[in-house]
Amino acid sequence: MSEMQGAGLFGPSPLGVLNVGLSGFAGAVEAAGGRVSPVAWRPPAGADPDRAWRLAVALADAEVDAANATAVAAFLAADPVLVDVSSAASVIPALGDGARRLLHAGPPIDYAAMCGPMQGALVGAVLFEGWAADPDAAAALLRDGAVATEPCHHHGAVGPMAGVVSPSMPMWVVEDRSSGRRSFSSLNEGLGAVLRFGANGPEVLDRLAWMRDELGPVLASTLGVTRSGEAGGLPLRPIMAQALHMGDEVHNRNAAATGLLLRRLLPDLLASGAPVASLGRVATFIGGNDHFFLNLSMAACKAMLRAAEGVPHSTMVTTMARNGVQFGIRVSGGGDRWFEATAPVVDGLFFPGFGPQDAAADLGDSAITETAGLGGFAMAAAPAIAQFVGGTPADAVANSRRMQRIGIDRNPAFTLPPLGFASTVAGIDVRRVLDGGVLPVINTGIAHRAAGVGQIGAGITTAPMGCFLAAFDALFPASRS
Amino acid sequence: MSEMQGAGLFGPSPLGVLNVGLSGFAGAVEAAGGRVSPVAWRPPAGADPDRAWRLAVALADAEVDAANATAVAAFLAADPVLVDVSSAASVIPALGDGARRLLHAGPPIDYAAMCGPMQGALVGAVLFEGWAADPDAAAALLRDGAVATEPCHHHGAVGPMAGVVSPSMPMWVVEDRSSGRRSFSSLNEGLGAVLRFGANGPEVLDRLAWMRDELGPVLASTLGVTRSGEAGGLPLRPIMAQALHMGDEVHNRNAAATGLLLRRLLPDLLASGAPVASLGRVATFIGGNDHFFLNLSMAACKAMLRAAEGVPHSTMVTTMARNGVQFGIRVSGGGDRWFEATAPVVDGLFFPGFGPQDAAADLGDSAITETAGLGGFAMAAAPAIAQFVGGTPADAVANSRRMQRIGIDRNPAFTLPPLGFASTVAGIDVRRVLDGGVLPVINTGIAHRAAGVGQIGAGITTAPMGCFLAAFDALFPASRS
Repeated sequence: MSEMQGAGLFGPSPLGVLNVGLSGFAGAVEAAGGRVSPVAWRPPAGADPDRAWRLAVALADAEVDAANATAVAAFLAADPVLVDVSSAASVIPALGDGARRLLHAGPPIDYAAMCGPMQGALVGAVLFEGWAADPDAAAALLRDGAVATEPCHHHGAVGPMAGVVSPSMPMWVVEDRSSGRRSFSSLNEGLGAVLRFGANGPEVLDRLAWMRDELGPVLASTLGVTRSGEAGGLPLRPIMAQALHMGDEVHNRNAAATGLLLRRLLPDLLASGAPVASLGRVATFIGGNDHFFLNLSMAACKAMLRAAEGVPHSTMVTTMARNGVQFGIRVSGGGDRWFEATAPVVDGLFFPGFGPQDAAADLGDSAITETAGLGGFAMAAAPAIAQFVGGTPADAVANSRRMQRIGIDRNPAFTLPPLGFASTVAGIDVRRVLDGGVLPVINTGIAHRAAGVGQIGAGITTAPMGCFLAAFDALFPASRS
Repeated sequence: MSEMQGAGLFGPSPLGVLNVGLSGFAGAVEAAGGRVSPVAWRPPAGADPDRAWRLAVALADAEVDAANATAVAAFLAADPVLVDVSSAASVIPALGDGARRLLHAGPPIDYAAMCGPMQGALVGAVLFEGWAADPDAAAALLRDGAVATEPCHHHGAVGPMAGVVSPSMPMWVVEDRSSGRRSFSSLNEGLGAVLRFGANGPEVLDRLAWMRDELGPVLASTLGVTRSGEAGGLPLRPIMAQALHMGDEVHNRNAAATGLLLRRLLPDLLASGAPVASLGRVATFIGGNDHFFLNLSMAACKAMLRAAEGVPHSTMVTTMARNGVQFGIRVSGGGDRWFEATAPVVDGLFFPGFGPQDAAADLGDSAITETAGLGGFAMAAAPAIAQFVGGTPADAVANSRRMQRIGIDRNPAFTLPPLGFASTVAGIDVRRVLDGGVLPVINTGIAHRAAGVGQIGAGITTAPMGCFLAAFDALFPASRS
């Protein structure tokens, strides 16, 4: 705009035009010697006039505003505390009833339709549980439905990438002190050949067995000591808040949070009664994995967002999750319904020898961190992540600023130093996503499309607009307008 | 400048004037309806025409440039590795010859002239060594010279605040792998009543005894394990570099570096053979003190800067240190000479109930971190430190940018994410400090002027110009021009 004013008033500068919308108009102006500045504007609400009208009404709906205030207040009041590590069978009823059942990331999906890494991880879990003797037999059980599969999110749980949980895996148990409700996540396996990227060879199964037989029990004893302390467990929000001041966004960068966790648990680890050799293996495993805190961050976010579920009329997003084929969201006022669209392929930085053609579509429950205003929403706090997911520190700051446009409120518990300690977003509003066309940004790892190859890159993606349109149409159907 | 050009060409804007120097000129312009933009310019070289001439010659002196390149190359080639913890008596000859001698921070100073915290700390060290039965007797020994005192810096050592080192204290031993030379620092005591702020009661002496009897030996055993590893010790530059990406500037903020240190040493700690109860006390002590890494950061910086010492004609600053009365610097081409000026009182954020009238003047060897381009020079990396030393994250970034004007070169080992991963300064050039009047900025804690009260605040100060003028005059004396 400044150029147009300046040029017209003061000098012989060429015609300046802001071109909004179709790019075809630009050619005519440029042919006449003019300069065109394209504006990336799109009509709101998916360019559907009826929906645009319903959106205008919804944006002015005081009942929705009140419902969102209720949902956000519950989200902000949640106080996730790490209280235990225990087997999935012992804390998730659906995995403890003797049925052969496994959990996976994202919205529901049939085994046959799943992406390679998720199928590979489920096969690995069947082998790990001893339900089949070899991968082919395991795959047959899954195809036939002899082993059932359900989303983690249907059981208060979350898992990164394939997100596969089986009954004997150790799980983080996070309790929301304000509601008493518990959320769960698996323990992070580290990098390389790991189940969550679909690998299921002996190395992977041996590590899972060690996690079940030594890591889990040692952490359980440790948290027994922690529970006997003043806080009755380890409050997770303060660790996440501090990590945001130490260069983490607690999704794809958890270097500081992992260190803070280890530092905080260490005295209790040493008082756990476990043999020193065992402590050495546990400390080496945790200390050697910058991503170890990720699963705890996810469980904490899940606990905070569960508190916001089920508020009638609320347009607050309570879940964003991907199964490698579909991207699904759930909304507070939408109950348990999933609103889905095709999961995008992530355009990011690929490890040498890999490219987008090798990539599985967006995968994992870890977008629960963005749903809670962290991860991509908090990238400003993690300038060094640009080296991992692409872009510059300035892009990271711009992403965090842009995300503030779709937030319902601010979260005073989590602040971003490079933005002058501005608060993170508390609650994504489906209405605002439609209104401004600003899609939630997500930092994510990229899995190879084939089972077991592992991580091949990392990048930044967005939740697809289709999910938000579907959720909006369900909450504000055409008949209501 | 843009305003002046624009106003003259296009409109009836008022007269715009840049006022350089005396503010008295501004009034006349403003009275005539003009707008004055003051420029904080001062004549270089302390407004001395002879020195200004010598500075102009020195700035164009290729021999000095070559000497500085040599000094900086040695600084950049230094590779500080933590190799041991051992008693001061065993690693510093002057403390191991049976004489009653203590080390202190900053340039040399007589006991009678010292500030309260330094006197208190020396009295505590005399008691700790069992050389006197009570504080009065200890003070008498110090006053009479029966216990001698010398700067840490005269013995390759550094200590924060009072910086007092006595023979039986455990010391970090840092070896520069490129020269084989060793540097030393004491172990951080934590906050509260501590020797380095001049406290010397039973609580302080008991903690020092525990550090001597348990912490030191456990760390020595741990580093024995570390030495047997591939690197033959713990390389410190990578930890410092990583901490700069995690919100530390490794002077007044060492939260990330302390976590990284603990995480890195933990497997070796658990393999040290020390009893679990002992490990628990050690881990709790280290993990409970965000400043624990500070002394190691200082020893590493000292090791890097020692490598740059003694290059004839070099104007690179190799030491900045304060004894609470005088601020002293040493320069590569100036040999062992100290160039001193009165230490400033730090204007910072005071804890409730305290103010500048309670403060000791700037104190401690910790400005060795700024000398190495860290601390205040690297504040951009630590936006959260604004909450501790005052100002805003934007000020922190501005400080780091300004310091680049007095640097000889850049240090690729240390980068600052918020500045697009720009490198930190490698070597402060005395000539540039005089030329631009830009003084080295220092983040520092503030001690109460009375012994033993402890820390009463933190803030940002600058090294006094007098030190740099004195160093310049010594290297480029009037007779030479």
